[in-house]
Amino acid sequence: MSSAPPILEIKDRKQQLVADLRRSEILAAATQVFGDNGFEATRMEEIARAAQLAKGTLYLYFQSKDEIYQATVQQAIVELAALTEEHIGKESHFAGRFAAFIRVRIAFWQEKQSLYRVILSLSRDNHHRQRSMAWQLGAVRQLQAIFETAAAAGEIPPQDFLAAAWTTMDAIRGVNERRVFADQDARSTEDDTLFLTQFLLTALGAAGR
Amino acid sequence: MSSAPPILEIKDRKQQLVADLRRSEILAAATQVFGDNGFEATRMEEIARAAQLAKGTLYLYFQSKDEIYQATVQQAIVELAALTEEHIGKESHFAGRFAAFIRVRIAFWQEKQSLYRVILSLSRDNHHRQRSMAWQLGAVRQLQAIFETAAAAGEIPPQDFLAAAWTTMDAIRGVNERRVFADQDARSTEDDTLFLTQFLLTALGAAGR
Repeated sequence: MSSAPPILEIKDRKQQLVADLRRSEILAAATQVFGDNGFEATRMEEIARAAQLAKGTLYLYFQSKDEIYQATVQQAIVELAALTEEHIGKESHFAGRFAAFIRVRIAFWQEKQSLYRVILSLSRDNHHRQRSMAWQLGAVRQLQAIFETAAAAGEIPPQDFLAAAWTTMDAIRGVNERRVFADQDARSTEDDTLFLTQFLLTALGAAGR
Repeated sequence: MSSAPPILEIKDRKQQLVADLRRSEILAAATQVFGDNGFEATRMEEIARAAQLAKGTLYLYFQSKDEIYQATVQQAIVELAALTEEHIGKESHFAGRFAAFIRVRIAFWQEKQSLYRVILSLSRDNHHRQRSMAWQLGAVRQLQAIFETAAAAGEIPPQDFLAAAWTTMDAIRGVNERRVFADQDARSTEDDTLFLTQFLLTALGAAGR
C-alpha cells in the first residue's frame, strides 16, 4: 500500500517528509471531526479547518471524505497490527501471546474511541461492511498463525483454528462495542481483558495457564 | 407489551382477531419490503402496497415506518425467545440446553436473513443501537439463568456468568453476521453450530459433554 498523495507532485526527500507529516495531521484532524460530527455530517471544509489548511490544499492530499476515512482506518489498522506483533514478540509462550493479542486490541480501541465509533457507525452499509470484514480478516490470520505455532509446540490441541480465531475476534469486538456504547456500567479494561483471556484459553484447551 | 393498534378502535372480539391478523400481514409485508429496499429507502406507500392495503388503512395500524420496524423486530424477538424456551425445555442437561440455545439462534436468523440484514443495517445509529442492545439483553438474561441452573446442579463451575453470556451472544452474532454478509464460502449451519457449542462448552468447563 503506497502512502503517496494522489495529486501532489513530490520533488525531493524534504518535500516528501513535509507531505507525510501533513498527511498525518490531516488524518488526526479528520478522526476528531468524524468522531464529533459523524461521517455523514462531516464536510471537507470542516476537515480542512480542523487541519488548519485551505480547502484547496486539502484536496491536494485527498480527493474525498471517503478517501480520508479509508486512510485513517488503514493507518490505525497498520498501527494496531504492529503494536500487536510487538507485544506478542515479547512473550515466549502461547498463553502470554494470546493474552497480549486481546489486551492490545481492547486497550487500543479504548484509546481511539472516537474513531471506533465512526467505524461502527459506518459498518451498516454493505460497501463499508465488506471493507470492515477485510480489515478483521488480517487480524484473524495473525491469530490463526499464533494458534498454529502453539499447536506445533504442543501448547494447544489441533482444532478448527480459523473458527476459533473468528470467535476470539467476535468476543473482543463485543467487549469493545459495549465499552464504547454502553459505558454507563462499564467494567475496567483489565477485568474485560482478564475474563476474555481466561475464558478463551480454556476454550482452546491451553495447558498450564 | 400491548399489541393493540394505536388508532383503530376495536369494538368486539371478532374485530380484534381481524385487526391482529391484519397487523401480522402488515409486519410480514414490511419485513419483505425493508429487506428488499433497505429501511431508509422504504416508504409507507410501498408497505401498504405490499400488504394490499390503502395507505390510509395502514396508518390506522401504524403511524410510522419506525413503528412498523420496531413491531417487526419485537415480534421476531418474542418468537425467538419462545422458540428457545421450547427447545431448551426438552433438554434435561446443561450441555443439551446450551446447544439448543445456540442452534435455535443460528437457525432462526438463517431463516429470517432479510430481517437480520435490516437490523444490522440500522444498528449503526445510536438510537437503534441502544434498542438492539436492549433486545440482546433479554437473551443474555435467559442464558445467564441457564448457566446458574447448571452451576446449582454442579454441571459447570461458578464463574462470571454475565460476561460468559455476553461472550456467547457475541460469538453467535459473529457467526450470524458472516452467514448473512460473507456468504460466498459459508459453512453449513450445522458446522457453525457444532463448533460454537463445543468451543464454548469447553470454555465454560462443562463436564461430561
